[in-house]
Amino acid sequence: MSHKIKAFGEVMMRLEVPDYKKIEQTNELQMMFAGTGVNFLAALTNYGHDTSLITKLPQTNIGQAALKHIRSLGIGTEDVVIGDQYLGIYFLESGFANRPSKVTYSDRQTSSFNQASIDDYHIEAILENTHMIHFCGIALALSETTRQITLNLAERAKDLGITVVFDSNYRPGLWKDDYVLARKYYDKMLHLSDIAFMSDKDASLLLQFKTNEETEQGRLEDLLKKVSHQYKIRSIACTRRKSANQTTHQTLQGFLLHDGDIVYSKIYPNHILDRIGAGDAFASGIIHGLVHNLPIEETVEFATAAGVLAHSTYGDTPLCNQEDVWNLIHQDGHIDIER
Amino acid sequence: MSHKIKAFGEVMMRLEVPDYKKIEQTNELQMMFAGTGVNFLAALTNYGHDTSLITKLPQTNIGQAALKHIRSLGIGTEDVVIGDQYLGIYFLESGFANRPSKVTYSDRQTSSFNQASIDDYHIEAILENTHMIHFCGIALALSETTRQITLNLAERAKDLGITVVFDSNYRPGLWKDDYVLARKYYDKMLHLSDIAFMSDKDASLLLQFKTNEETEQGRLEDLLKKVSHQYKIRSIACTRRKSANQTTHQTLQGFLLHDGDIVYSKIYPNHILDRIGAGDAFASGIIHGLVHNLPIEETVEFATAAGVLAHSTYGDTPLCNQEDVWNLIHQDGHIDIER
Amino acid sequence: MSHKIKAFGEVMMRLEVPDYKKIEQTNELQMMFAGTGVNFLAALTNYGHDTSLITKLPQTNIGQAALKHIRSLGIGTEDVVIGDQYLGIYFLESGFANRPSKVTYSDRQTSSFNQASIDDYHIEAILENTHMIHFCGIALALSETTRQITLNLAERAKDLGITVVFDSNYRPGLWKDDYVLARKYYDKMLHLSDIAFMSDKDASLLLQFKTNEETEQGRLEDLLKKVSHQYKIRSIACTRRKSANQTTHQTLQGFLLHDGDIVYSKIYPNHILDRIGAGDAFASGIIHGLVHNLPIEETVEFATAAGVLAHSTYGDTPLCNQEDVWNLIHQDGHIDIER
Amino acid sequence: MSHKIKAFGEVMMRLEVPDYKKIEQTNELQMMFAGTGVNFLAALTNYGHDTSLITKLPQTNIGQAALKHIRSLGIGTEDVVIGDQYLGIYFLESGFANRPSKVTYSDRQTSSFNQASIDDYHIEAILENTHMIHFCGIALALSETTRQITLNLAERAKDLGITVVFDSNYRPGLWKDDYVLARKYYDKMLHLSDIAFMSDKDASLLLQFKTNEETEQGRLEDLLKKVSHQYKIRSIACTRRKSANQTTHQTLQGFLLHDGDIVYSKIYPNHILDRIGAGDAFASGIIHGLVHNLPIEETVEFATAAGVLAHSTYGDTPLCNQEDVWNLIHQDGHIDIER
Amino acid sequence: MSHKIKAFGEVMMRLEVPDYKKIEQTNELQMMFAGTGVNFLAALTNYGHDTSLITKLPQTNIGQAALKHIRSLGIGTEDVVIGDQYLGIYFLESGFANRPSKVTYSDRQTSSFNQASIDDYHIEAILENTHMIHFCGIALALSETTRQITLNLAERAKDLGITVVFDSNYRPGLWKDDYVLARKYYDKMLHLSDIAFMSDKDASLLLQFKTNEETEQGRLEDLLKKVSHQYKIRSIACTRRKSANQTTHQTLQGFLLHDGDIVYSKIYPNHILDRIGAGDAFASGIIHGLVHNLPIEETVEFATAAGVLAHSTYGDTPLCNQEDVWNLIHQDGHIDIER
Amino acid sequence: MSHKIKAFGEVMMRLEVPDYKKIEQTNELQMMFAGTGVNFLAALTNYGHDTSLITKLPQTNIGQAALKHIRSLGIGTEDVVIGDQYLGIYFLESGFANRPSKVTYSDRQTSSFNQASIDDYHIEAILENTHMIHFCGIALALSETTRQITLNLAERAKDLGITVVFDSNYRPGLWKDDYVLARKYYDKMLHLSDIAFMSDKDASLLLQFKTNEETEQGRLEDLLKKVSHQYKIRSIACTRRKSANQTTHQTLQGFLLHDGDIVYSKIYPNHILDRIGAGDAFASGIIHGLVHNLPIEETVEFATAAGVLAHSTYGDTPLCNQEDVWNLIHQDGHIDIER
Repeated sequence: MSHKIKAFGEVMMRLEVPDYKKIEQTNELQMMFAGTGVNFLAALTNYGHDTSLITKLPQTNIGQAALKHIRSLGIGTEDVVIGDQYLGIYFLESGFANRPSKVTYSDRQTSSFNQASIDDYHIEAILENTHMIHFCGIALALSETTRQITLNLAERAKDLGITVVFDSNYRPGLWKDDYVLARKYYDKMLHLSDIAFMSDKDASLLLQFKTNEETEQGRLEDLLKKVSHQYKIRSIACTRRKSANQTTHQTLQGFLLHDGDIVYSKIYPNHILDRIGAGDAFASGIIHGLVHNLPIEETVEFATAAGVLAHSTYGDTPLCNQEDVWNLIHQDGHIDIER
Repeated sequence: MSHKIKAFGEVMMRLEVPDYKKIEQTNELQMMFAGTGVNFLAALTNYGHDTSLITKLPQTNIGQAALKHIRSLGIGTEDVVIGDQYLGIYFLESGFANRPSKVTYSDRQTSSFNQASIDDYHIEAILENTHMIHFCGIALALSETTRQITLNLAERAKDLGITVVFDSNYRPGLWKDDYVLARKYYDKMLHLSDIAFMSDKDASLLLQFKTNEETEQGRLEDLLKKVSHQYKIRSIACTRRKSANQTTHQTLQGFLLHDGDIVYSKIYPNHILDRIGAGDAFASGIIHGLVHNLPIEETVEFATAAGVLAHSTYGDTPLCNQEDVWNLIHQDGHIDIER
Repeated sequence: MSHKIKAFGEVMMRLEVPDYKKIEQTNELQMMFAGTGVNFLAALTNYGHDTSLITKLPQTNIGQAALKHIRSLGIGTEDVVIGDQYLGIYFLESGFANRPSKVTYSDRQTSSFNQASIDDYHIEAILENTHMIHFCGIALALSETTRQITLNLAERAKDLGITVVFDSNYRPGLWKDDYVLARKYYDKMLHLSDIAFMSDKDASLLLQFKTNEETEQGRLEDLLKKVSHQYKIRSIACTRRKSANQTTHQTLQGFLLHDGDIVYSKIYPNHILDRIGAGDAFASGIIHGLVHNLPIEETVEFATAAGVLAHSTYGDTPLCNQEDVWNLIHQDGHIDIER
Repeated sequence: MSHKIKAFGEVMMRLEVPDYKKIEQTNELQMMFAGTGVNFLAALTNYGHDTSLITKLPQTNIGQAALKHIRSLGIGTEDVVIGDQYLGIYFLESGFANRPSKVTYSDRQTSSFNQASIDDYHIEAILENTHMIHFCGIALALSETTRQITLNLAERAKDLGITVVFDSNYRPGLWKDDYVLARKYYDKMLHLSDIAFMSDKDASLLLQFKTNEETEQGRLEDLLKKVSHQYKIRSIACTRRKSANQTTHQTLQGFLLHDGDIVYSKIYPNHILDRIGAGDAFASGIIHGLVHNLPIEETVEFATAAGVLAHSTYGDTPLCNQEDVWNLIHQDGHIDIER
Repeated sequence: MSHKIKAFGEVMMRLEVPDYKKIEQTNELQMMFAGTGVNFLAALTNYGHDTSLITKLPQTNIGQAALKHIRSLGIGTEDVVIGDQYLGIYFLESGFANRPSKVTYSDRQTSSFNQASIDDYHIEAILENTHMIHFCGIALALSETTRQITLNLAERAKDLGITVVFDSNYRPGLWKDDYVLARKYYDKMLHLSDIAFMSDKDASLLLQFKTNEETEQGRLEDLLKKVSHQYKIRSIACTRRKSANQTTHQTLQGFLLHDGDIVYSKIYPNHILDRIGAGDAFASGIIHGLVHNLPIEETVEFATAAGVLAHSTYGDTPLCNQEDVWNLIHQDGHIDIER
Repeated sequence: MSHKIKAFGEVMMRLEVPDYKKIEQTNELQMMFAGTGVNFLAALTNYGHDTSLITKLPQTNIGQAALKHIRSLGIGTEDVVIGDQYLGIYFLESGFANRPSKVTYSDRQTSSFNQASIDDYHIEAILENTHMIHFCGIALALSETTRQITLNLAERAKDLGITVVFDSNYRPGLWKDDYVLARKYYDKMLHLSDIAFMSDKDASLLLQFKTNEETEQGRLEDLLKKVSHQYKIRSIACTRRKSANQTTHQTLQGFLLHDGDIVYSKIYPNHILDRIGAGDAFASGIIHGLVHNLPIEETVEFATAAGVLAHSTYGDTPLCNQEDVWNLIHQDGHIDIER
């Protein structure tokens, strides 16, 4: 009778250049560990859910440090496989105002996660007592093996009646801009999904859905309804982001289509401290609302406020708890000091 | 014929999480020493006044470091008592945009300041050659002994014709939300005060004054006039703060009621670097104007600009001098580089 | 059939002045969380044992950060109680050469751990499936309640046949130099103990055992044999430390008395990086050997090498694994780079 | 047939107080090396031009560090003379919001650059194979010898048909407010210049040109046209900066007068990370456009965007490349993450 | 008539955990760029030689930062090829006393250097005007392509009469302990070499030379004489290192066999700040002496002192100049402050 | 009846490269303020003496920061003159093992202290109520004006019966190796001195005293007795330092000649954290003993232990108190942790 929520995904080391410098200006880097699965589960753990990460980490002191970080977040590590040698690394130069942020990857292909074979994971044991499982478009893209593991896990989960969540996270570079290949696998995943996170751009550019709507909002609603209908996906959600001409000032609004109904959150003006991971905070907020059967209006407000707080929080991984999120929703413009 | 300005108040260690991180994300803390009395006197010392802090510090290397800091600010330490073991500590997680700042206290009850008995202080020697003495609602709240010392010092100062300044600084948590108890002691202190810093909220919520005014400004003026009349307080001042929906962007305006006249400063838009201590900078600016008999319009402008600069200055303690403040008042929108 | 090893002890925040500065020279502190129980269990967890910490942490962001740290070490947190407000803090000025290290405590009395009542802990649940439980002289000293909880837990553990480990850790300051009071409780604890960590000084000065032996080694052996006999303690161990006139250069040797046999480890010359926590590393090494029924010669070598490595490791908490320890034992003077 | 671009100018050490603190609050300074010539050439080097700095550095480890920094930027160092003892130093307290930045110089007069005699530089060798040479009003102001070297180099360059670029950079303090003296030398330099960077204020206050225009834009255009005509300068450019009442929020627009035509760039709102060096980035952008015969509209857009990016980049020295600049020009308000 | 000294080798990013922590204890890493070729050439550049590095760097901001670092050292970059995506990374946990240092590699196989084909390098252009070229056993081991490039460059250099230097740098892990394979290629390289850096262990374990000598010194001399004779190598040098049971305290002595004569340097006791790169400093010292035809006694003293100073210098790369080295040789035990 | 101890001396900014790096490796410097006078008085203040510094500081934010630091040390600032523009700066690369420390000065000649005229100081007011005044060979060397101020102050002090202390601190570089000039002024100062700090090298090399003694100790005693006799100096003291072939490991022993009697302290082996300022700590220890009429054996032990502790303390300025010094003297090889 467990309600464990699990996620399959890569853990990477983030090496950030401090103080908004460029990497050529520094001899010091800020290190942390992150990944879509980690971010998603960390937030849900903070909201009181029981979670576990499905991944593979190298058997080195680097892998040990990553494992220690996941444990510290309270995420279950019983599904973490240890083996092989490397952890994926990415470098982050944080942008400022008119200068964009820049992410540079080291080679992910040779990481333990990407080199793992399907036999490394004990699929039946993993899915036992699992209520929900989260996948991400990145694992679908990374390599042939991560793609097969993703699809196998999702199919078996579907068979077992486990709720399948899919976050599109479409990265053209990882597919080497091969839209046809990507579409084939996104199509498979969406047929297996109960809840999806994706935007109207994913629907039109990647999946090739068409619309006659002319407003931005009209296009969004029409396209995602068609996706929902075609793939029998009960819930689709995404954020709408408007930039005030600068990296660090953007507005954020949440969108949720659930059982055919559409709701929007209020629009938050935002000064962004850390750009990465807000989408994962939004996704985990939606899941929190759906799991607890909150009204969909509350669900989208909760998720959006969680995303906004993640932008105000250092690092990829959301760290707020439920009280923090509700406080933002109810504060009504008087944010100051909590003593 | 000294014009020494003194303040009675606790010195605390502030431990700030750097880089807008949460405490669970760091292994490094920024340390400084501060307190309402320290902040208030530091600013006045920078403006050329002769000052002295009345407090008790522990006889440890921590107390020594605090003493060294107070000396560095140029504040007189002849009234500092050394003894007992602990210094109060507070942790600060600085907020960012939509995430509020968070202050967490260690136990203040057992600090040297809070454990001090009235016999630790040589009241007659302290009040000799003193022109003005500053108290704060925090010492009134902390413990039975600090409350008695506050009242004794204030009564004796009143007797000796020393100007008594009282900064309301009402913190419900320190009174465990016991408004009735708080009101009893605020009532006593206000009867002893010549100058007070307090807001309309203090007047209505804490002191239970009533008004029929309906605008925010009307309520402010009516309530504080009533307070002034009831307690025979010659000057009452406060700041008005409006948040642009975010922790770090607020406007600031000063208010001063003096001999029945009311003046407001201009309104400063502000991007806040350090939220704590701006009220103390405002208070010391008002006192600077009153001591030098500046026109009340200049006094409120000086105080507000000082508060605005304190928001732009790292740490609780104001560090600008008179020239910095007048420059801001006169600069008229062209702030750039001083070479 | 569990072999869980548990420890009852306080978690404290360590605030270290960096770069061998004094606290009056810095505005930055290094923060970590530690404690005898944490240190002891962290090492055993690294050696592959299943562990759990019995403690109480405050329900603040500070308590949350401490909990996160314990989780990161892989120590079970199912016996951690959350409640009350404060965490004990200590400041560390690390010594250098001829300058000793200096530890300054904030008030521990008001910490959640010291304020906890016996009802906060579910003793029967805690002791279920427990193989061994570790206590420390600090909890015996801190307050009347921690003393009662220590004794109650130890008595009930004894009844249930759980191995009771007691680390003397005698701190005269915590007992306010009241040897008589201390002796009374040490006497009780030793009667309940199966394994003890204590030195000949504890035996003579604290417990008042006498010896006619004249050499240092003779006194050590005679006194601890008498303690072992008197209290029916199967194993007693300690380290012998010789300082080369400076804080940072000392030799270390281990001693173990087990079933009447006495063994010594080889003597390690050492350049100390971090003085605190080496005793806990030694204790956990002894326990590791005893639990696995290693020969006592290997046990004392393992424990001593673990203590030496802890001196070469930053922080209170031992972080090496079994392989690191055996490598040091077998390396025979060729320590260089592991690639 | 080389197209080397050279600049004559001082290299200074910049010592910046970190974290927006005042110098009295820190015990740590950020160090870098910069100067108008370095900044100007670094940007041009990034855009693919072949460059060389003409300067004198001390023969100490400080001079060595400065030389190493210039080399790292890819600027040619064959014209750098090594000798004498000191390097000029300036301290920077970065302003925040309503608090202005503050620059404090150490003594520049005794630096190697300012003590250099004209014989230290091999003028004929320096000017051989040089296409363009850049001077700055600071070297004209610093001392009698730097003034003579500036004029000698410029005259000889003029004779050899090398394009002479002059950046006004008028600093009243360096001339001790002696406008008459300054005017005499500016007049000489402008007669030798082909391209100049200067504002309408320089034209009116320093050079004493008059205008009847009443709008700000009218005055700018009329005055600089008169300067261009009087001194036969083909291109004059400058930036227009409007402050939104705060140090860190300003708009930036570029202006270019070339062969009698006037163009303006679009206006960029900007949140400033580092105030110093944006003028040099603008100047090098103009030169890049002129050297490559870009249309003047593109030239002014390129230069202004380069200036805007320099404001978003840590340090005095521009570090973006051509692609970064064109991306900003074409991005149209969607700056986010580059992966 | 150039005397350029070149080296073929990989540039890596070194990420060091600061303050002797383990990587699981930090969220901050110190970054620098290094490699045998960089280290070797940097020292020779400091001694006044004209140098150039032959390598391939990725066309990313990481590659740009590496290039900038090499330029800063004064090493020529005309033979650096830019292309592909990744730079090799290694993590360093610096050991302390009884705890060894630990190096962990990210995947080097996919780095630009290791992915480079022989066609990326213009061998004839590279070898033109080259006096001496340095190779290292690491490039021989890394991959089939780096092995072929190494051998091709060495053969063509031999043909052109360029002095070939080979530093054995044997790393069993890179050869996956396949001694037979390694021996085959070491044999080829040694036949092409004029100067070699290798130890008696390389001669016996790797090359399978035999000796009947029984003392350590006898074995060293006999084995390396046989190597010299067999491969017609004029000069062979190495260091002898004795550890005082700890990572950070070792003695260092140099050995040089030249034209059949053998010399030893004096023995330096050493407290090591940075273990990595001292071998490269020794090798460049030997080359400096040989190129300048210093007496072999002076050559070995110079090289050994350079190695000792490299141990006292932060980072892999030697940074001392000739004067520093001679000062150490002549100082005779009075090292203090240079003012 | 005051017993104020004063010192005339320059305050400088020390900029230290952190982590034993060279300045070319860092972009961060540690800043502090120091000087012989500051160091000497800081120690005496810690021992309970009433002190005041006679100096001139610039009227900039740099001068303000220096003043703040002096105040923090508890040194009186009533004799500090504020004016002019610059503060002397020195850079420190801390040596390690076989690499010496390196000090590089910025130009001191133009500092406020060196530009001060004798009229800046109110000599009569300064010397009123002064018990003892300290001078240093550095002020004698720096410039003609500091030399005249030194001599004038010393002559007037001698007239008034104030004890004159002179610390030789002979720096050949500051005298441009002109021994004849230096000897002339040292001769004048020594005739005015009651207590001197100088070595046998100063006596022989600078003052040209001769001796026939052949042992090191014999030479020391004979030469300083002759100095004492010739100049009628009651007390002469110095330290004897022996280096164990490395920068950071030296032994220290104190020497005191007083009223014709000679005493030596015990010899301390030392691992040096900060080389600069130990001489000032020794000097202030001797003065402390002489002022309190301690036996000369205790005086020399106290002074030497204070010097040893200063070597173990970060920064130029001694920070220990009397208890720390006595603890070191009495500890007898058991330095560990003070709790």
